[in-house]
Amino acid sequence: MSLEETTKMKTVLKIQSEIRRVLADELRKREFIELSPVILSPITDPLNHPTSPATINCYGKNYSVTQSMIFHKQLALRTLDKFFVFSPNVRLEPEERKNTGRHLFEFTQLDLEVKDAKREDAMRLCEELLVSVIKSIHKNCTTELKQLGRKLTIPKQPFKQITYKEAYQKYGEDFEMILSKMCKEPIWLIDIPITAREFYDREDPANPGYLRDMDLIYPEGYGEALSGGEREYQYERIKQRILRKGQNLEQFKDYLELAKNDFPPSAGFGIGIERLTRYICGLQRVEEASLFPKIPGKVCI
Amino acid sequence: MSLEETTKMKTVLKIQSEIRRVLADELRKREFIELSPVILSPITDPLNHPTSPATINCYGKNYSVTQSMIFHKQLALRTLDKFFVFSPNVRLEPEERKNTGRHLFEFTQLDLEVKDAKREDAMRLCEELLVSVIKSIHKNCTTELKQLGRKLTIPKQPFKQITYKEAYQKYGEDFEMILSKMCKEPIWLIDIPITAREFYDREDPANPGYLRDMDLIYPEGYGEALSGGEREYQYERIKQRILRKGQNLEQFKDYLELAKNDFPPSAGFGIGIERLTRYICGLQRVEEASLFPKIPGKVCI
Repeated sequence: MSLEETTKMKTVLKIQSEIRRVLADELRKREFIELSPVILSPITDPLNHPTSPATINCYGKNYSVTQSMIFHKQLALRTLDKFFVFSPNVRLEPEERKNTGRHLFEFTQLDLEVKDAKREDAMRLCEELLVSVIKSIHKNCTTELKQLGRKLTIPKQPFKQITYKEAYQKYGEDFEMILSKMCKEPIWLIDIPITAREFYDREDPANPGYLRDMDLIYPEGYGEALSGGEREYQYERIKQRILRKGQNLEQFKDYLELAKNDFPPSAGFGIGIERLTRYICGLQRVEEASLFPKIPGKVCI
Repeated sequence: MSLEETTKMKTVLKIQSEIRRVLADELRKREFIELSPVILSPITDPLNHPTSPATINCYGKNYSVTQSMIFHKQLALRTLDKFFVFSPNVRLEPEERKNTGRHLFEFTQLDLEVKDAKREDAMRLCEELLVSVIKSIHKNCTTELKQLGRKLTIPKQPFKQITYKEAYQKYGEDFEMILSKMCKEPIWLIDIPITAREFYDREDPANPGYLRDMDLIYPEGYGEALSGGEREYQYERIKQRILRKGQNLEQFKDYLELAKNDFPPSAGFGIGIERLTRYICGLQRVEEASLFPKIPGKVCI
């Protein structure tokens, strides 16, 4: 790295460290417990987009490297009512995604879950967290923002929202990026169709075929910030949803075994720390938000 | 889990969350930056004891799951002067170690490094952190300590210390456990022989054959708490040390390539969060300090 690049990286890392501090502090104020991440497990998020599974044989059993901790979050609800975890995720994305400026094959997300919560509770919590982060960065990282030439406004709560259907009708297939470029503040995308997401997001009983879930989209073209929502927590519903996705129960047998007595109902989300850092710092590419970025298809330390 | 086990686990997780908070806060007060962990890399700690390497092919290159972030810490010193990271480590330990009560094949360590620091600086920092953790747990987790029936005293600074040679002469091969059972407060083990440790711990120029490093041993039989020390930071010295260990340079070629212009001199350590939690809570086994414990040889979620 050149001296200039090193100086910029140092500035970005200082801001990222402050982002982590504020998120953890705000959650602790609300009585969340911080959990340790899970890296290897026989069960992990299957995801709804093509990633190559990263698996390792441990003592004769196949373990996956965590793609997201969603299943472990459901299990943890049997012990804790609210918790968060800074969770490293490995997702071996298709190589073409190296060009998006938004994909790393290893990243950290702040993943959280709340027992008995509704989607709207998770949305309000997220808004509060984001506003607190931006306010603290303004206050505690004034010099750093100036060094990066970043002007960052504090979004007004509640954030605007749009349904998936409306977004698709108005802006077509590429609505996410169009919305992101149009907006001056983060915007919620809600009511995503069940075909577009994983089986574990809860189907809306009042609106079959659509989910009680949400994405947050950053403004200024920074794209998707997070996904979250309510979860399917009943054993029978979970099995139905797996089958409706055309997946087989055998593939999820370890998870289904654990789901047998149902999970507690819950809602939560996971927000990528590198993408959040990119937005806060106004960086061109997500790899600028990591000291050891993992760029799909490249050899990375 | 029975209701009783769930209640105990909740208590332990609350204390662990507080331990994480205090460690991070104390380090931030001292102007440390928090970094994101690294999970996959072509380079990782070779360790000085037998673990099976956990490797994954990513885009045609072999990546190891992090055994410790030591090499990345040396690299990070080119950007930052002091930093810490809650770093998940995977170490596929021999199956027999499931019985020790001290080994998990996945755990989190608080790993930190300070540019231009000496071993003694790292030792004092560690003592300050541990004393702060214990004081905060006394203050903020009074009920939880009572629930666990744990009486925890605040160790006096500076902690006592003993050289490896003296410990070996006095107590024989099993000195670590003997010392741990004898002591009422944590004790430093220093000046470990180079044959007993990895090549990256710095050889003492004033005492050849011995390292400028240290282990901390918990009292009451809880065993080893952490390892740390000064590092070999010069390219030529690193090469010599690899060769003197009977290892070959080819195995470390990615790391050596990065070491070519030397690293900054530094000292640091890594302290296991589950073992620290076990000591603070007075738990019989380390697996009681994790919601999803990874026990060598067992199938674990």
